Amino acid sequence: MNILWIFAHPEQHSLNGSLMSDALGALDGLGHAYQVSDLYAMKWKAVLDAGDFGDGPSVRERLFVGAEQERAYKTGELSADIRAEIEKLAWADVLVLHFPLWWFGPPAILKGWFDRVLVQGLGFGVKTPDGHTRRYGDGGLTGKRALVVTSVGARPPGFGPRGIHGHVDEVLFPLLHGTFWYTGMAPLKPFVAYGADRHDPADYARTSAALRQRLRTLPDEEPLTYRPEAGGEYDDELVLRPDLAPGRAGLGVHQR
Amino acid sequence: MNILWIFAHPEQHSLNGSLMSDALGALDGLGHAYQVSDLYAMKWKAVLDAGDFGDGPSVRERLFVGAEQERAYKTGELSADIRAEIEKLAWADVLVLHFPLWWFGPPAILKGWFDRVLVQGLGFGVKTPDGHTRRYGDGGLTGKRALVVTSVGARPPGFGPRGIHGHVDEVLFPLLHGTFWYTGMAPLKPFVAYGADRHDPADYARTSAALRQRLRTLPDEEPLTYRPEAGGEYDDELVLRPDLAPGRAGLGVHQR
Repeated sequence: MNILWIFAHPEQHSLNGSLMSDALGALDGLGHAYQVSDLYAMKWKAVLDAGDFGDGPSVRERLFVGAEQERAYKTGELSADIRAEIEKLAWADVLVLHFPLWWFGPPAILKGWFDRVLVQGLGFGVKTPDGHTRRYGDGGLTGKRALVVTSVGARPPGFGPRGIHGHVDEVLFPLLHGTFWYTGMAPLKPFVAYGADRHDPADYARTSAALRQRLRTLPDEEPLTYRPEAGGEYDDELVLRPDLAPGRAGLGVHQR
Repeated sequence: MNILWIFAHPEQHSLNGSLMSDALGALDGLGHAYQVSDLYAMKWKAVLDAGDFGDGPSVRERLFVGAEQERAYKTGELSADIRAEIEKLAWADVLVLHFPLWWFGPPAILKGWFDRVLVQGLGFGVKTPDGHTRRYGDGGLTGKRALVVTSVGARPPGFGPRGIHGHVDEVLFPLLHGTFWYTGMAPLKPFVAYGADRHDPADYARTSAALRQRLRTLPDEEPLTYRPEAGGEYDDELVLRPDLAPGRAGLGVHQR
């Protein structure tokens, strides 16, 4: 399989830097091909702005982000750094997002990768021939799998179903459901390195082994079972039908 | 009251740009003082890196982000742009974060504001005299209130309790609970402009009026009732006690 590994940490000599190095070695051993987008090393431009879209209309009175993205995507005028990432994405069967959890989300440099690369016409606003929007289980990235690899300072109970930080799968819902699943990718269960601030060599050996073991199942492990938009489980207002997860509410209802 | 309005949109002539302009007029009318951090106009640096921390140790073998933040915060060596934002924060009674929802979170430029400004020693890692970490209802920003003002293309049912996009309060949990509440701020219910892509002038007038009306209640509206870490509702593992929200799980259990 072809794996695109996107890494967002400012320090190569970090826990995450070491984990990536071990992980890439494991991918080699498993016979997978990979490309790495090391966003800090690439000095990736985090901020979406008018410079992403070529010259655009000769007089642009107002920037409409989605429309400009789609126009530039279709005319090949997206900036070269974005086009390069889109090519890597097209090549990949699996997307791995590897980052330390900062303020319960990806570092800005990685958020900007989503903002700038998942353009309208590819990441959203993708239509069927009869004009329906393809999203949530279908879209421009259908057929790919996506895995979060992240590190947190906390220990596991705090990120469990009733832990104070929020259940990690729900804290990551904007990424797992709102980005991966939205664009048609199959979201895999996140890999979380807990207690990252207190890793001694034995902890590190365990975490690295767990990650390498986890990578063995990349091709065929069961993704998270979110409900597709087009499957009849949501009504015309996009609300879950009352007979499904009856009487419940919250992010958990969107998983089967 | 003193209000810090943080704005993250690349286009001034946007729905959000107009809403901000109306809102600032309303704050004037209400007799509040405000400062604006217009992140795009300021060309705010989104990406946390070693340049944030002054020269640091003469030979820095490895960047430990939190420790470097705290050292530079205490010695006054944080970069000037970060220090300026921390001063505005210190001045403010209310923080307003105003942004279009991109991939179910803030644009990268705003995520980078959190990553860079809420440094260790101010935003996290703040200790009581006896060594307990102050967070979730207590911390370096205790006493302030925080409001999200955001826009989405979708209509309200899709962001409701069983809507396909996820209940908006839970989609924003990393911000409302993981950032505002974590640092000690009181999170207010988000203000969401729905159907932002299809606003005609009458829609705009309604949305603007609703926002201006909402700003009247800023000083005394009831914040979201998240549970404090120090209040005895969580056990030593930071798991909610079984007699509270019994039998339930998910992000909703953290609200009273």
